[in-house]
Amino acid sequence: MHDLFNTPNDRRGTHSSKWDILDSKFDVSSEDGIAMWTADSDYPTAPCVLKALQDAVDHGVFGYFTDFTDYNAAIQWWMKTRHGWDIDTDWILTAQGLGNAIALCLDVWSQLGDRIVTFNPVYHEFEFKIRRAGREPVQCPLTLEGDTYHLDLEDAQSRLDGTETMLIFCSPQNPSGRIWTAEELRKVAEFARRNDLIVVADEIHHDFIYPGETFVPFDIAAPEARDRTVILTASSKTFNIAGQKTGNMIIPDAKLRETMAQRLRSLDYSPNALGLKMVTAAYSPEGAAWVDAQIEHLIENRRIFDEAVNAIPGVRSLPLASTYLAWVDFSGTGMEFDEISRRVRKEARIAPSPGPEFGPGGACFLRFNLATQRYRVEEAVKRLQEAFSDLQ
Amino acid sequence: MHDLFNTPNDRRGTHSSKWDILDSKFDVSSEDGIAMWTADSDYPTAPCVLKALQDAVDHGVFGYFTDFTDYNAAIQWWMKTRHGWDIDTDWILTAQGLGNAIALCLDVWSQLGDRIVTFNPVYHEFEFKIRRAGREPVQCPLTLEGDTYHLDLEDAQSRLDGTETMLIFCSPQNPSGRIWTAEELRKVAEFARRNDLIVVADEIHHDFIYPGETFVPFDIAAPEARDRTVILTASSKTFNIAGQKTGNMIIPDAKLRETMAQRLRSLDYSPNALGLKMVTAAYSPEGAAWVDAQIEHLIENRRIFDEAVNAIPGVRSLPLASTYLAWVDFSGTGMEFDEISRRVRKEARIAPSPGPEFGPGGACFLRFNLATQRYRVEEAVKRLQEAFSDLQ
Repeated sequence: MHDLFNTPNDRRGTHSSKWDILDSKFDVSSEDGIAMWTADSDYPTAPCVLKALQDAVDHGVFGYFTDFTDYNAAIQWWMKTRHGWDIDTDWILTAQGLGNAIALCLDVWSQLGDRIVTFNPVYHEFEFKIRRAGREPVQCPLTLEGDTYHLDLEDAQSRLDGTETMLIFCSPQNPSGRIWTAEELRKVAEFARRNDLIVVADEIHHDFIYPGETFVPFDIAAPEARDRTVILTASSKTFNIAGQKTGNMIIPDAKLRETMAQRLRSLDYSPNALGLKMVTAAYSPEGAAWVDAQIEHLIENRRIFDEAVNAIPGVRSLPLASTYLAWVDFSGTGMEFDEISRRVRKEARIAPSPGPEFGPGGACFLRFNLATQRYRVEEAVKRLQEAFSDLQ
Repeated sequence: MHDLFNTPNDRRGTHSSKWDILDSKFDVSSEDGIAMWTADSDYPTAPCVLKALQDAVDHGVFGYFTDFTDYNAAIQWWMKTRHGWDIDTDWILTAQGLGNAIALCLDVWSQLGDRIVTFNPVYHEFEFKIRRAGREPVQCPLTLEGDTYHLDLEDAQSRLDGTETMLIFCSPQNPSGRIWTAEELRKVAEFARRNDLIVVADEIHHDFIYPGETFVPFDIAAPEARDRTVILTASSKTFNIAGQKTGNMIIPDAKLRETMAQRLRSLDYSPNALGLKMVTAAYSPEGAAWVDAQIEHLIENRRIFDEAVNAIPGVRSLPLASTYLAWVDFSGTGMEFDEISRRVRKEARIAPSPGPEFGPGGACFLRFNLATQRYRVEEAVKRLQEAFSDLQ
């Protein structure tokens, strides 16, 4: 099955945001640049998803969709078999992808000007979405000890002024790949209760768990926080179907759920049919086997990437427990971020995500997306070694 | 090309809302019932749309979408060549289909409890969306003179109490198929200005215009009302791709547009990639030729339907200037609506849309969707004639 992940392709000119704005956004050559920023993968989605789409094309009629039974059952099955998480199908509400889900949570459970808590460095779009909604981010730093990020809830507490209404929490954590323990999650739940915060737990990376690691869903670790918890999940990263904008809000608490459901009804939300069919096909035994093979592929990509990058003096790729996003610390090079970024973009012709976007703690980091064909990873590390060869 | 519209198919079991809830919603046999209610068509979409989808399946990668240039240019081309309407590409904002677009307009330009004006009978979802958003509908009756509906703006004026903030206006009109003249549209614009109403002009049926008829876009008839006008268009009815939830709000006025754009940003709206690709492919010369052929098909469907139905004493199918939705008056039968409905559903095994849903003026009507293969129309009229054979 590994060939599925290594067949060369070219995503340029396919309306791919990852590939089609290298030049305009990053000043990276669109000729031979390598896109390693936004979190979608370069290989095709699972054959079972393609089959579902092909069936739809063959049928050829794309009218109004009804009946979420299969869709909801597939999600329920996936959470149970992949994550040991028992959910009721009526806990599931569907948004236009998780970006929209976060925005909807902000819309429903916070007001203009409210302060919204995050632990940083974290997915930069949290901050952007908070600001676009007219709310104010409170970015609480994680502490980096050795290779591992830790929550500092005492420090976080000291940054709050009582006007906070929501915590947007990333688990597993993007960009560090950190998987929070059940005990840490319980402490986060306590922190949320103490400060009366709604917890929006973004678990979108939960399917990329590496051998020896265990992911604990927030709802399993802290069921006592259900009255304030919204869990966000999607098959979009796992199966590389982010463009179809189909993500879920899983809300165990009936009262919270009804508040969101009412908002979705008033906005006349209804997900797109092909997205629903793709997700339904993805969350299946065939899909699960494909994800297992993908993880094998990613393990080898990481090994090659980390080995080569860690060989550059002063550069450190943090070991990943989860996600396909390598979080690389360039601070040991002694260079300014601008110089690091210039070498990577202009000499190595690679576009990673700039660390400073992720907020406090991201200053000398770059985030590299490894969910690509192996030949691209091999080419990328060769170029990085060359771009920093003066440090050898 | 006509075979494209007559190839038999079976939409049951495809998550089709039109076909898969005949029994549960209408008490119509799912064995041999004929779905003629919701406004999607039964034949496959245009080959150019299928080709775009097939290309996407063959590529197999469904990551984040960027660059609306082609999409917007296709819409601009379509409005110009099909409707003589010059629009700027930056007037276009994209929603999750037009139902969602109407809901967004209510969300942005009205408040809880506001009164929202419609002219009835009209697309029943206007009322439902108004109520779901916590607003109150003010349903102003159209007058039916002979076969033609007319606006009675004096009567409408008398129903207003000054707390109205929006008019949701259907043009061409669903369910009657009425195409409003430029003069009528100007009077509607005056009415809106006099009462300080935002005009949401739903022009979704504008591509189904029959020979001898001329559709005038609201924006061409009443450019002076641009500071209060939002025009809704979509390829979803025209190309039978409603399930992809991709519709447009065309807003010429920069200030109005920025208000909606800000709301879309705060909700982190971004349309699904396959929907965008389908619309882009649809709004093309190949798509236009397919629509022309579809209209030929519909003309013959209407002829067969009207001839047979009008032969039933007391039954009158109103002549259609636009839309594929026959609006049939059963009042001449002297029967109660329940008996009419029972005969159609239980004897003819047909599920049309019940007229009363469309508000004042719909009491003894049924709306039949004729956008189907001819054999279904032929079977439907045979069954209708049998179900009312005692009137012969």
